[in-house]
Amino acid sequence: MKISHLGPAGTYTEAAARLYSEAAELITYPTVPEVIQSVITDNTDLAVCAFENSIAGTVSIETIDLLLKADFPLKIYGEIVLEIQHGLIAKAGTTIESIQTVYSHPSALAQCQTTLQKILPNAAQVALSSTTAAVEAATTNDASGAIAGATAAKQYDASILLQDIGDEQHNATRFLVLSKQATVPTGDDKTTLVFTTSDAEESGSLVKVLQLFAERKINLSRIESRPTRQQLGTYVFSIDIHGHEKDKDVGQALAEISKHTSWVNVLGSYPRWK
Amino acid sequence: MKISHLGPAGTYTEAAARLYSEAAELITYPTVPEVIQSVITDNTDLAVCAFENSIAGTVSIETIDLLLKADFPLKIYGEIVLEIQHGLIAKAGTTIESIQTVYSHPSALAQCQTTLQKILPNAAQVALSSTTAAVEAATTNDASGAIAGATAAKQYDASILLQDIGDEQHNATRFLVLSKQATVPTGDDKTTLVFTTSDAEESGSLVKVLQLFAERKINLSRIESRPTRQQLGTYVFSIDIHGHEKDKDVGQALAEISKHTSWVNVLGSYPRWK
Repeated sequence: MKISHLGPAGTYTEAAARLYSEAAELITYPTVPEVIQSVITDNTDLAVCAFENSIAGTVSIETIDLLLKADFPLKIYGEIVLEIQHGLIAKAGTTIESIQTVYSHPSALAQCQTTLQKILPNAAQVALSSTTAAVEAATTNDASGAIAGATAAKQYDASILLQDIGDEQHNATRFLVLSKQATVPTGDDKTTLVFTTSDAEESGSLVKVLQLFAERKINLSRIESRPTRQQLGTYVFSIDIHGHEKDKDVGQALAEISKHTSWVNVLGSYPRWK
Repeated sequence: MKISHLGPAGTYTEAAARLYSEAAELITYPTVPEVIQSVITDNTDLAVCAFENSIAGTVSIETIDLLLKADFPLKIYGEIVLEIQHGLIAKAGTTIESIQTVYSHPSALAQCQTTLQKILPNAAQVALSSTTAAVEAATTNDASGAIAGATAAKQYDASILLQDIGDEQHNATRFLVLSKQATVPTGDDKTTLVFTTSDAEESGSLVKVLQLFAERKINLSRIESRPTRQQLGTYVFSIDIHGHEKDKDVGQALAEISKHTSWVNVLGSYPRWK
């Protein structure tokens, strides 16, 4: 099995893909559209894309924008929840006090800001395109450190000077696995759908949609409204429910949903991450 | 009137505070808790805090964490929606081609990544603590640029080489105005509340809460579920509804809400931003 993911190797996305499948061949692409295109053209079987971060909210606008396209040809086939543990990484022998420059991806720098102000208030912070590039820079420069995960540290034989330097305790990123294939029900699945309601009686329509699930005791595990890019004042709702679209109760609810929405798209049903 | 906001001067937060009141005296503090404390201790009248960004989702974890505290002593008194227009800024006479280093806040770097890869693929990106600090660095170094707003450019007499270099067209940040005072209804208000439902029949409880508003034709303008930090699998819902808590219909709905929630807090009613 071949899994495509955003490169370079060594980032948190690789760690997520590896967590999903120990045996798969992992292939990196430089952009999210190319990651997805590789599945569409059968060069790979599955694509792993970052979807949301527990701290920052949605991390990947690119993934969401692609999923919201009406003709998007892939389905959500799985999910991966990866605990993000930012470490302070440097080449072996480096002391924390000697670090004058800290490299990382801008999101990781932002997520470690309070800690960095405490431990390295005078260090310059340099943003690079990935946490892997940051570890590479830190290991080829003196008096430098990187914020990255253990996968990147291992790749460059670097030392982890401090573990878990993120400002927030529970930092997890949820990745989606995308495929041309649909899954079969496992008994413990989730289904993700997006829909818009008519502007005029928005909260009424939303209630009617949620009611379809509630009256069947189908739980909701995420709900989010996002302004649509097209028109101010209209919203896309995105929800995750428990169950598979082929489960009888979920299927019944989905069959009625178009009565209360102006547009609806079931993005996929997939085993819940455990 | 005195308004406190996160410093330094010249950032987007200052631009938002100035947009809210042309005449107010603006006072900066180095951290969000200090911004809020200044209102609690009557050193300032109002606090302006970043709340959410249309692209990245929630930007200010600090603001949300403070608002979610059960004994938080301030109310939401107003909102400000600021269009974020990132410019490429440098000292007068600098050409785009000559820029070898780009300074900015990590969030701004992240929001301009695609554009930067196109126009300055080889420039080093250096993350600083604010967009103001970035313009200061760009204007005191040769071959340097900053990503920041027009307010910061003006403060340092710098040139805007390129306007609007953000990757997304509609980039707006919503700020909340916090006060000890409550507002009076204006006829076009919003009310923000947060609540948790019992885990057991989550989507059923959520429907019952939303039904209270829907049956009174009270529209919803935002809904978001966030995992609680305390316990995995429990959620805090945060919603914005149209109307003021002193409006009869909103008041009736709020009076019934505790039947369906395990915890509820009305964070404030305030005039809708226009």
